[in-house]
Amino acid sequence: MRLMRRPKGMLAEGDLVLGEEAVPEVREGQALARVKYLSVDPTMRVWMATDSYLPAVKIGEVMRGGGLAEVIESRHPQYKKGDKIVGMTGMQEYVLIDAQAKMPYQKIPSIPFVSDTLFLGALGVTGITAYFGMMDVGKPQKGETVVVSAAAGATGSVAGQIAKIQGCRVVGIAGTDEKCKWLTEELGFDAAVNYKHADWKEKLTAATPNGVDLNFENVGGEIMEAVLSRMNLHGRVVLCGFISGYTKEEPAQANLGMLIVKRLKLQGFLVLDYVSRFTEAATELGKWKMMGKLKDKQTVVEGLEKAPEAINMLFTGANMGKTLVKI
Amino acid sequence: MRLMRRPKGMLAEGDLVLGEEAVPEVREGQALARVKYLSVDPTMRVWMATDSYLPAVKIGEVMRGGGLAEVIESRHPQYKKGDKIVGMTGMQEYVLIDAQAKMPYQKIPSIPFVSDTLFLGALGVTGITAYFGMMDVGKPQKGETVVVSAAAGATGSVAGQIAKIQGCRVVGIAGTDEKCKWLTEELGFDAAVNYKHADWKEKLTAATPNGVDLNFENVGGEIMEAVLSRMNLHGRVVLCGFISGYTKEEPAQANLGMLIVKRLKLQGFLVLDYVSRFTEAATELGKWKMMGKLKDKQTVVEGLEKAPEAINMLFTGANMGKTLVKI
Repeated sequence: MRLMRRPKGMLAEGDLVLGEEAVPEVREGQALARVKYLSVDPTMRVWMATDSYLPAVKIGEVMRGGGLAEVIESRHPQYKKGDKIVGMTGMQEYVLIDAQAKMPYQKIPSIPFVSDTLFLGALGVTGITAYFGMMDVGKPQKGETVVVSAAAGATGSVAGQIAKIQGCRVVGIAGTDEKCKWLTEELGFDAAVNYKHADWKEKLTAATPNGVDLNFENVGGEIMEAVLSRMNLHGRVVLCGFISGYTKEEPAQANLGMLIVKRLKLQGFLVLDYVSRFTEAATELGKWKMMGKLKDKQTVVEGLEKAPEAINMLFTGANMGKTLVKI
Repeated sequence: MRLMRRPKGMLAEGDLVLGEEAVPEVREGQALARVKYLSVDPTMRVWMATDSYLPAVKIGEVMRGGGLAEVIESRHPQYKKGDKIVGMTGMQEYVLIDAQAKMPYQKIPSIPFVSDTLFLGALGVTGITAYFGMMDVGKPQKGETVVVSAAAGATGSVAGQIAKIQGCRVVGIAGTDEKCKWLTEELGFDAAVNYKHADWKEKLTAATPNGVDLNFENVGGEIMEAVLSRMNLHGRVVLCGFISGYTKEEPAQANLGMLIVKRLKLQGFLVLDYVSRFTEAATELGKWKMMGKLKDKQTVVEGLEKAPEAINMLFTGANMGKTLVKI
């Protein structure tokens, strides 16, 4: 599936185009893998639009994206047939792995009762993003109040659970009552607020009687401003994403006055800076998963041709937990 | 001079009104001081408009503000006639000092060749703001590139000189060629950029060949965004003020996308949090002043009735260095 046009707003027909091409031949030093699941992430919308922390995907290129694949043929010293791998497969059914791949693939282990797709979600890059954003940047302390926006998303849901594990009061912000129910009844959030209700700011206030010490921000704009207005003096804000702005011409803006009035500390971070410590995060997340402290949910869309719809779901809020495309 | 109306935009006639009232009688435990100079600061415009880190000045109240005064009569155990003091005198000619003043007054020393008004500027709250913002929050390291906005203002001019003392490359942003000349030729800034020139962003780029490690932000909005776009990965931003938004209905907004792309750290601060350490800052600033490393300039407007004009000068940029009203 190739990017044929830079999208405006939500993805439209013709932005990403699926074609049929010959499966590449495997030469000495290469392996061929069949992609089984694609990871669907908000940041992909940024890659389609503009240079950012990675260059924009070029027009005509296979769309960049993470995936889970199985090696079906190998003349590569590191992979053998049957190996399951995760990495930047791109949005395609077959991926050729070169000796000199720019971003390495990780083999995933077979663990009883753990589905492979978890390595695209809670135990994969999304979970690892939540892990470092929370543990390394946010540093939640026992008893603090933590607010997570886009809390029912792949990263937010893990970030909130990590803050619970650290002994915090955790409040999630999400866009449906069903999501809020999932957060409080299954993931153990102390409260969840549906920002689509007219009185949501009053509910946020009620849910944070001691103010907010730490904000794990995934959304930006009006939602972020409402959380900032609840922050305690000297509070911290982890800037993970600004999904509210990704489909707009104008990027998400925010009124920064509160940052001085409340003497806040904001820090932007990217999981790419932590590549050398991925194993540390995956180990910790895996341990919490085994102990039943880390729950997850997946929204699976079937068929590569549906990938644009799956990406749009992230922006309409139709997804819950980790969104995947099954090929 | 009392606040009679919340201003819209620049101060207009009737917002602040000067009247004549009886000089208060001095009772046991009180002292009376005659105010000689008023400190004119951007934050006063915020106090007129809205609750912030301090409650808004109430309609009908004497306008809040710092000043330099001389005690002319005293039945107060801590003050004697002739003492010179700085503190929150309010915008008025006489101030009664109670035993229970909410904010204490500081007696200022007589130092040869040091004018009293310096204790409202480089050695006063403005200089102390620059000191803690730079030294405690920004922590400039030798060899780093530091950008200061509103660099010819009372705080910016001191902040930039402190960064120079720490061995940094310092670039100022200001709004006239005269201010830029003062910054580079007298204060020792390495470069200064006039943001009113059409090509100022190119000039900022040229002046920061190694990017920007630390931004001391006084302005917000478009100027801040231009500096953010020059920041190096993992750079720091000290949020001292957002003067570009103080006279507008809508507060200064900023596009935060760059904060994640560049993994920046922003921190808002207020000098009020450092009251217990003011002596430390004043001592250090005084030492630099004595060594000739800290230069200053004052814009003095004569007559209490001109105070609203003096405040407006901060927003039109007609001032340079510390702005004072001489009564």
